[in-house]
Amino acid sequence: SMASPKKLQGLVAATITPMTSDGKINCSVIEQYVDYLVINQGVKNVFETVNGTTGEGLSLSTEERKQLAEAWVTKGKDKLDHVIIHVGALSLPETKELARHAADIGASGIAGIAPSFLKPTNKDALVAFLQEVASEAPDTPFYYYHIPPLTGVKIRVEELLDGITEQIPTFQGVKFSDTDLLDFAQCVNKYQEKFVLLYGVDEQLLSALVVGASGAVGSTYNYLGKQYNVMLEAFAKQDLELAQQCQFCAGEFLSFVIQLGFGVAQIKEVMTFASGIVMGPPRLPLLRASQDFIEKANAKLKSVIDHFPKLP
Amino acid sequence: SMASPKKLQGLVAATITPMTSDGKINCSVIEQYVDYLVINQGVKNVFETVNGTTGEGLSLSTEERKQLAEAWVTKGKDKLDHVIIHVGALSLPETKELARHAADIGASGIAGIAPSFLKPTNKDALVAFLQEVASEAPDTPFYYYHIPPLTGVKIRVEELLDGITEQIPTFQGVKFSDTDLLDFAQCVNKYQEKFVLLYGVDEQLLSALVVGASGAVGSTYNYLGKQYNVMLEAFAKQDLELAQQCQFCAGEFLSFVIQLGFGVAQIKEVMTFASGIVMGPPRLPLLRASQDFIEKANAKLKSVIDHFPKLP
Amino acid sequence: SMASPKKLQGLVAATITPMTSDGKINCSVIEQYVDYLVINQGVKNVFETVNGTTGEGLSLSTEERKQLAEAWVTKGKDKLDHVIIHVGALSLPETKELARHAADIGASGIAGIAPSFLKPTNKDALVAFLQEVASEAPDTPFYYYHIPPLTGVKIRVEELLDGITEQIPTFQGVKFSDTDLLDFAQCVNKYQEKFVLLYGVDEQLLSALVVGASGAVGSTYNYLGKQYNVMLEAFAKQDLELAQQCQFCAGEFLSFVIQLGFGVAQIKEVMTFASGIVMGPPRLPLLRASQDFIEKANAKLKSVIDHFPKLP
Amino acid sequence: SMASPKKLQGLVAATITPMTSDGKINCSVIEQYVDYLVINQGVKNVFETVNGTTGEGLSLSTEERKQLAEAWVTKGKDKLDHVIIHVGALSLPETKELARHAADIGASGIAGIAPSFLKPTNKDALVAFLQEVASEAPDTPFYYYHIPPLTGVKIRVEELLDGITEQIPTFQGVKFSDTDLLDFAQCVNKYQEKFVLLYGVDEQLLSALVVGASGAVGSTYNYLGKQYNVMLEAFAKQDLELAQQCQFCAGEFLSFVIQLGFGVAQIKEVMTFASGIVMGPPRLPLLRASQDFIEKANAKLKSVIDHFPKLP
Repeated sequence: SMASPKKLQGLVAATITPMTSDGKINCSVIEQYVDYLVINQGVKNVFETVNGTTGEGLSLSTEERKQLAEAWVTKGKDKLDHVIIHVGALSLPETKELARHAADIGASGIAGIAPSFLKPTNKDALVAFLQEVASEAPDTPFYYYHIPPLTGVKIRVEELLDGITEQIPTFQGVKFSDTDLLDFAQCVNKYQEKFVLLYGVDEQLLSALVVGASGAVGSTYNYLGKQYNVMLEAFAKQDLELAQQCQFCAGEFLSFVIQLGFGVAQIKEVMTFASGIVMGPPRLPLLRASQDFIEKANAKLKSVIDHFPKLP
Repeated sequence: SMASPKKLQGLVAATITPMTSDGKINCSVIEQYVDYLVINQGVKNVFETVNGTTGEGLSLSTEERKQLAEAWVTKGKDKLDHVIIHVGALSLPETKELARHAADIGASGIAGIAPSFLKPTNKDALVAFLQEVASEAPDTPFYYYHIPPLTGVKIRVEELLDGITEQIPTFQGVKFSDTDLLDFAQCVNKYQEKFVLLYGVDEQLLSALVVGASGAVGSTYNYLGKQYNVMLEAFAKQDLELAQQCQFCAGEFLSFVIQLGFGVAQIKEVMTFASGIVMGPPRLPLLRASQDFIEKANAKLKSVIDHFPKLP
Repeated sequence: SMASPKKLQGLVAATITPMTSDGKINCSVIEQYVDYLVINQGVKNVFETVNGTTGEGLSLSTEERKQLAEAWVTKGKDKLDHVIIHVGALSLPETKELARHAADIGASGIAGIAPSFLKPTNKDALVAFLQEVASEAPDTPFYYYHIPPLTGVKIRVEELLDGITEQIPTFQGVKFSDTDLLDFAQCVNKYQEKFVLLYGVDEQLLSALVVGASGAVGSTYNYLGKQYNVMLEAFAKQDLELAQQCQFCAGEFLSFVIQLGFGVAQIKEVMTFASGIVMGPPRLPLLRASQDFIEKANAKLKSVIDHFPKLP
Repeated sequence: SMASPKKLQGLVAATITPMTSDGKINCSVIEQYVDYLVINQGVKNVFETVNGTTGEGLSLSTEERKQLAEAWVTKGKDKLDHVIIHVGALSLPETKELARHAADIGASGIAGIAPSFLKPTNKDALVAFLQEVASEAPDTPFYYYHIPPLTGVKIRVEELLDGITEQIPTFQGVKFSDTDLLDFAQCVNKYQEKFVLLYGVDEQLLSALVVGASGAVGSTYNYLGKQYNVMLEAFAKQDLELAQQCQFCAGEFLSFVIQLGFGVAQIKEVMTFASGIVMGPPRLPLLRASQDFIEKANAKLKSVIDHFPKLP
């Protein structure tokens, strides 16, 4: 049965895929990873274990993606409230296969993305594609992952949501990874009762909370989840000054690393440092972060965490 | 003497340049325009009477820009708290001439933009250019107008502000017209005491207020100023629900017209309808808005104003 | 053993993937397709039967790609001079699997593309990725498919080629699908003896021939191969006026359909009309071309072919 | 009376604006500059003395542009076949004033550009703007300067030319500065008898000659005019191998400096070195080229000129 749309809120970690030093996926640390998220970061939702961005999902084989999905669902059982499996791929057959698999193993939800090589050119094409995916998992909530800077697909989400449940009855929500907050606010305005609207640009989460984001999905919550939870709590109590201080402080870290060059390879190193769990190298075409980056980023992270605002 | 940075806050109208039906600037309606802003819209600051965007400043001759600047300064006296003259131009000599003129006529401030044809390629080049402009008006506060979607100049504002008063002692603030709220928040974090930080993407103002915008500059405040003032007041009272409702309602109008195609030509028609003051046609290379746009936009504006949230 | 680099020249068809009306790949018409290319179009090379662009390769499953590769290699035997299999995919494991498979079935060559979701950020990353692919097929010539408008990977090809055979001994050539003819000309200048340099922007092939293209790969050669061969022959005989007339005439068709909206879905219809072999619908996220497009495009094609210049 | 369209062909130098060390325009060297172009470079046409790109025209005041125009017309008399004055500006009144002035001083032609800040959104808007400019100089041939990478205005030139003489009877030709050679070839195909079609991407001139360019306008012809003339002559004699060698050799220089960062500031230094005429610093927002650039670029230029192919 379907999870209530209201249930997925707060912080959702876009998980990193741990790899061994010789480049294979390393499921053996997932349990430790789950515990770290729940205990150390206070993050009880996991999104996109096998995704296109942080989790290097689109760099993995179908078989690897299934193994990772299983590991997260199994190890997350009774610990995580939601495990959403990203099933997006450029090819429809692969996406459908992953959707069926995720449903079979009991994932809380599946997420799909717009294909980014041959692209849908309008809403009808995008909905037709997503519908084929969602219908493979007819009892599993479906989320749309909107990330135009990476996919190049700029169909407005408000337009996409209009009438979507007629074609995709399992439609449950959106991960909105774009800075167009007019579109996001219009989605909230029209659909906040009906859908889960999660914001995906960690650098400016507070700006999305104020227009009604249900929660947030991002890689930052892997290692700054505890800190961002302070912001969420401050915001919930309408303590805007504190929430703002939290946003400034997190922004200081993110602004710093973005200027150094911050991608998935770099995120893996930051997470290894923060959690003590070895995330390993990224997979090609990504190259490992430089030692210079690692030293500077880790020092900055430590400093930001040390000075992060606290709840009164 | 210099205005206190704290003084310029709240809503600032990016003014439209009224034209006669044969395409000349029409200063005869400026007094009426001033009164409309103050009395009907509650907007007591005016920015960029002769600007690059809403005011079609870069489509005007130097002489026309001077006449408009004089009209606004004269007619705004004792009625408007600030009249900031935009002096940006592609050529440094013209920009400097406009800066001197604005100082001579007693403008409250001047604003400059990055040249967008031959572009500054780094902070040093941009600061050197702005410094030459600001030094022509050594007693007049200087504002930087950051609008990368139009100029293509993407130098981060936080970087620009670091050490700026050493080179530009009159530096007073920024009009920030971009959706990169990480950069904007970092500016607030480091410089909110020192500089005025005005946000310039009307469609998502609330998202900037929550990270500390001092106020807002935009064309929308010409005709929805009264409504946006409700949002500002609600936000100041920490009534986030009301502020959000205001943002949604304003967003409904803006999202609607943006989908129809919304530029300066269209803004002129909306303002003519809203204010009853004839703004006239745009200047080439802009063509007049279609009758279809005018009818749809005006009907939508009326409906949005009728249903706009009110303060308790 | 490796084919001589000089051997692959002239026109190479970027093949379309025929599908049944219910969206399955349709290998049953490949033999007819081969004959059509050889007999009707004078095209004896085939590239990228399972590719990312014309062949919808990235929209197919790994299994489908293998079946298509086998069909083309089998049916092309003794008829086609080269069958190059495109093995590009976002994930390295899948690309490697396809490379091994292509080698096993005796393809004349394999082609790889830069991953376009998580992207290589410099030459080292791109070469490392391609090297892993090529080394799976150590006796099969390797081609790099450069298409920055689709991948967003803008590493100059000249830079890529410098020293490439040290890391990829099977490196054989490039399909260059970009309008940067300075880069292309520099590649020819330095590497025309060593590598095959095929141009991939059909709309301006003559402009690449004049700076030394060995040949051309494109979708247009599926249905205008015979006509483009006139251009090649005229150019080889230094009859520039005739070559120019050919380019103008082909350009007239391409310019016409590009203005109507021309993508893979539209190409399939044009090819069905031109060859009489039913190419079927495209796969999602592409939608079938409109009837209006089909009628206009087919009429234009007929007219262009009727008036195409002929060799004296 | 109007110059015959056929007359403006071959190489046209997009002139640099010489400046004194304190940043004023330096008309005193124009005569020497004219002689250098005619005698040393074999270039007898001059375009855009006061332009938006190489000549920093949009960085100059109207008064400066007039002075430069007069200097070039006066000093070029009896030496240069054509002196075309670029009159483009963001504002229509300034453009019109410059057009009248150019006609008054007897320029051979005027050139206009699409405004790039507030942009024309379709052909009608662009033509209406250009028409107003051209009609100020009713006896002077008018050229359209198409440079979408700088203006962001991507209206196809073929579309623009359709019916243009009805609205602009003085329309004479196009400077086409884009890599879309399909559009360029279509213009040649339809309008080569009627209009002058000059190509403006120096890096790939040969590719435009082969589809029928009448000539070329560019900054490179200031200092490599003699060399490019070898290419033109070789091409005219259908000696494609020699023409290709010339393109490769020129491309070697251009590719080298583009990788170092090549803009107007850098061009000024190269020209100072090549001609011995001091071009001076660029105007802000451009900063002077680095000493490192100057040394590397000059050494490369010398080497390329030394090894440039010669006519048999």
